[in-house]
Amino acid sequence: MAGRLFKRDTTMTYPRLHTIVAAVIFTFASLAANAADLRGSGDLGIIIERAEGSVLIIETTHNTVLQRIEGLGDLSHASAVFSRDARYAYIFGRDGGLSKIDLLRGALVKRLIQGGNSIGGAISQDGKVIAVSNYEPGGVKLFDADSLELLADIPATYGKDGKTSKTVGLTDAPGQKFVFSLFDGHEIWLLDAKDPRQPHIQKFTDIGLQPYDALMSANGRFYIAGLFGEDGLALLDLWQIEKGVRRILPDYGKDDPKLPVYKMPHLEGWALTDDHALFPAVGRHEALVASRQTWDLMKKIPLHGQPVFIISRPDGRQAWVNFALPNNDTVQVIDTLSLEVVHEFKPGKGVLHMEFTPRGEAVWISLRDEDKVQIYATDDFSLRAELPAHKPSGIFFTRRAHETGL
Amino acid sequence: MAGRLFKRDTTMTYPRLHTIVAAVIFTFASLAANAADLRGSGDLGIIIERAEGSVLIIETTHNTVLQRIEGLGDLSHASAVFSRDARYAYIFGRDGGLSKIDLLRGALVKRLIQGGNSIGGAISQDGKVIAVSNYEPGGVKLFDADSLELLADIPATYGKDGKTSKTVGLTDAPGQKFVFSLFDGHEIWLLDAKDPRQPHIQKFTDIGLQPYDALMSANGRFYIAGLFGEDGLALLDLWQIEKGVRRILPDYGKDDPKLPVYKMPHLEGWALTDDHALFPAVGRHEALVASRQTWDLMKKIPLHGQPVFIISRPDGRQAWVNFALPNNDTVQVIDTLSLEVVHEFKPGKGVLHMEFTPRGEAVWISLRDEDKVQIYATDDFSLRAELPAHKPSGIFFTRRAHETGL
Repeated sequence: MAGRLFKRDTTMTYPRLHTIVAAVIFTFASLAANAADLRGSGDLGIIIERAEGSVLIIETTHNTVLQRIEGLGDLSHASAVFSRDARYAYIFGRDGGLSKIDLLRGALVKRLIQGGNSIGGAISQDGKVIAVSNYEPGGVKLFDADSLELLADIPATYGKDGKTSKTVGLTDAPGQKFVFSLFDGHEIWLLDAKDPRQPHIQKFTDIGLQPYDALMSANGRFYIAGLFGEDGLALLDLWQIEKGVRRILPDYGKDDPKLPVYKMPHLEGWALTDDHALFPAVGRHEALVASRQTWDLMKKIPLHGQPVFIISRPDGRQAWVNFALPNNDTVQVIDTLSLEVVHEFKPGKGVLHMEFTPRGEAVWISLRDEDKVQIYATDDFSLRAELPAHKPSGIFFTRRAHETGL
Repeated sequence: MAGRLFKRDTTMTYPRLHTIVAAVIFTFASLAANAADLRGSGDLGIIIERAEGSVLIIETTHNTVLQRIEGLGDLSHASAVFSRDARYAYIFGRDGGLSKIDLLRGALVKRLIQGGNSIGGAISQDGKVIAVSNYEPGGVKLFDADSLELLADIPATYGKDGKTSKTVGLTDAPGQKFVFSLFDGHEIWLLDAKDPRQPHIQKFTDIGLQPYDALMSANGRFYIAGLFGEDGLALLDLWQIEKGVRRILPDYGKDDPKLPVYKMPHLEGWALTDDHALFPAVGRHEALVASRQTWDLMKKIPLHGQPVFIISRPDGRQAWVNFALPNNDTVQVIDTLSLEVVHEFKPGKGVLHMEFTPRGEAVWISLRDEDKVQIYATDDFSLRAELPAHKPSGIFFTRRAHETGL
């Protein structure tokens, strides 16, 4: 463009020269401003502002908000993953929106509506493929992580008449794979994305009625789906897929008529320690402890309310628990060695999510109804900092870029 | 300087204006060059060039070398840790040098000789304190991670006459702690660095003769020191320090008169999976498998030579092994489910180190005597790329910023 300008007008006057020089300097100055922002991305993260369709970019070294990015659509049930260089976040919105944001420039890079109703997404082991699962029209789509170009559209058809299913519980797995469940189809699919335009799919049928959510163990080995339509959980051992899907904890989810279920627990919030899996009971004021060797129920830990998330500190020594209404102002901490509650406090109304710093010295807690995020030390439980945020929900740190199944 | 120039000569000519404008543009262009380099730091790493006193800054997304930094002293036995934002690397050299380099600008930020003979270092859980252990004069020093200012100098004195000991096996631990061993003092010290100018120290004495190296389990719970002066290993369970240090694997290191020990194995290279610990036998062509529940010996896996490192892929499904002379041209891969060697190949002469990408899809292998680094896929073991490097030894990726005990 600048070249053409010169050709059209060769009788350049000084004011024009100055204007051009100023423009050049301005351009370089804009770039230079970014140079001043040169920073590592290992301590960055985002906070979802669910009501505003915005996210806050934060850093966990000095506990500050760096930027707000708006215009991300319906984030009332949003999740996020990160590029392998920890520079970009991919945000999956309830409205089917897939947004790629640049944490370093603080800018929305690209946004598209990829489906009618998205419930979650994942990024492949090599960081090149984004997978999104949808309620409407169902199925899973694969996108190029760089350009967000559509690579594959995989309808979740099942049965003889080819009905399509909502897909849930999508996670990545080692070997460039994704795993997800068909809510209506009662199946678990293992998707190999080595050739993302021609993915290979292995199906496990009749795994249990209505899988509604799932979790992947941190080592990418155990995929465990919760069942809405019946009791128990469906487990697929990816190290031994020839054994197929088996049922564990057969009593899990059994109705207790005395307590209505206020909110289905999030399975991704299970705490898997060396020896045990701690997970939220459905509708009961309990954490359930299973053996990681046999998956048998070992113990029930009484809790303050119906647990939503039970999340382990990165070292596994503590598990932090938040609760459904009417107890969503409280947090409890379980010691995973003694398997007892060792701390309880009330940070405020609407505790929706908790995210640990990578090495676990602190935890960030979103308080939706108080419009703030609080940061606590995990050793003495002291309040370290507080940040304003509009109706904060999910908190996601870039450490997740290097983790499997998050 | 530019201001003074203007005062001296107010009759500015156009050529001079142009010169100044050009200089201004050049200045901004220099900054802009950095802006163009704006990048995430999650996929960065360094390769130690042991003979040259230099390091290569690399990235693992496109497998390229970004920069070489020289002048880092004696790196013949060097290790590195990373700042919590994954921007800076701290390199511990054999000559007692502590160098801080900026991975994004590709520059040496600061370098000091902190001791006579350094053997390793660690960074605190909160990222604010660097600890370095020394052979000469012995002891541990704490530095401010930002400025490299000395915060504390802790002599490793032991016994009634106050002798000082070489310190080894220094690692970080949760709760802003460090753990290290006294080679001459036969002790393990647990250092609380919450107040880094007045660290609190808890000592465990008579833990076994001459601890020479140690490892920390990934969750920061088990500190295990190898003993040069006797058989077995010393284990401290940081979750139950009241139980003190106990001996495990009492036969470990027992002399085998048929095989001289070419190189003591690196303990930090142990592979800890969900169920087992795989570790290198001393002087024998074996990997030893211990139960993680009881620490009893379960199995011996025959190997191609005397193992140096046995390192688990991040998901724990594979453990990769390199060897001492004369077998240091070979790598073997153990399947941790079947506990058998499933792959063997000869990448070339002088295999010194292996580092996995954060999610384990690839492994980087340094070939000292071939002056190159090779990158292999871990699923089909295919060679993906090869990079030139001068006598490469240790390879360290920024993922370590978020890990405990690395």
